[in-house]
Amino acid sequence: MGKVLYVATSNVGKLNELRLLSAEYGLELVSIEVPKIEVQGDDLEVIASYAALTASTYVNKALIVEDSGLFIKALNGFPGCMSSYTYRKLGVNGILKLMDGVTCREAYFKSVIAYSDPTHGVRLFSGVVYGEISSSARGSGGFGFDPIFIPKGCGKTFAEMSIDEKNRLSHRAAAFRRFAEWFNKYF
Amino acid sequence: MGKVLYVATSNVGKLNELRLLSAEYGLELVSIEVPKIEVQGDDLEVIASYAALTASTYVNKALIVEDSGLFIKALNGFPGCMSSYTYRKLGVNGILKLMDGVTCREAYFKSVIAYSDPTHGVRLFSGVVYGEISSSARGSGGFGFDPIFIPKGCGKTFAEMSIDEKNRLSHRAAAFRRFAEWFNKYF
Repeated sequence: MGKVLYVATSNVGKLNELRLLSAEYGLELVSIEVPKIEVQGDDLEVIASYAALTASTYVNKALIVEDSGLFIKALNGFPGCMSSYTYRKLGVNGILKLMDGVTCREAYFKSVIAYSDPTHGVRLFSGVVYGEISSSARGSGGFGFDPIFIPKGCGKTFAEMSIDEKNRLSHRAAAFRRFAEWFNKYF
Repeated sequence: MGKVLYVATSNVGKLNELRLLSAEYGLELVSIEVPKIEVQGDDLEVIASYAALTASTYVNKALIVEDSGLFIKALNGFPGCMSSYTYRKLGVNGILKLMDGVTCREAYFKSVIAYSDPTHGVRLFSGVVYGEISSSARGSGGFGFDPIFIPKGCGKTFAEMSIDEKNRLSHRAAAFRRFAEWFNKYF
């Protein structure tokens, strides 16, 4: 097997996407149970850095944390950094209700991967995908707000794609590829 | 003057309410500038504890942090612990839109005060006020979601009250009174 890469997440959907991507780069992804401190804020970089730094210090291992959010222009960037909380409380229907009658459907998904090594600190990698909010939920793949996000130039939502297909387009894949290229060069 | 009580907040509306309450208990409230770490989560107690503990450790002083949220039954407790973020992004109109056509208007405001002393750790005090979400925003007092919250048995929203009036009813005042009685007994 390839080099081991630890990731601090309990999100199975995220893990499945990252596992396929890791394999492309010869990395063996291992999820690690660790208390992860997620701060509030408007900045995925800060949230991912803090979570990765505290988690890697706690287990004394190098690891990655991935944090992402859906930023909707007409909603002033909401749900943004609070996407997972908002998803748990309001679901996709809450967002569709907030977008009811709104003409501007522009949105983007952003992902930040923080790699933290207990001795060398944190390094950040990000990826963004632009698109729009659909008028109704479509598809059963992916997770979170995937059923209402259509990447630019696509007729389909993220939830209507296979993991492979989503990994060719997604914010998370873009961030991960940047990370993996750097990681394989230096480690 | 009375005993000094440090509070870590930059919210002027909150400070004004707490200052009047402090005076009732012979306490001189002093706001203190300190990096405050607010974690994400579903639990005001955890958020306030962590913020107070890290802030009091940082400045090496005993202090309080107050955290509060509006929990709407029909929205599964949203915006809850993320009320301030949600307010900044969606405002009261976002909540009114989410509540459009919703018959059950029940909601409560909850406040948690965490007192942290660098040597003795954290002590928590809470207060709750039940009420309902109004059909439109009313009043210009208070802050945050005050214009859409009507305490039970009141014809008015929090934003239609003076600070004194709000302090007779509010979640924050209830939490503070519990804290102040304990504080004055032991310090």
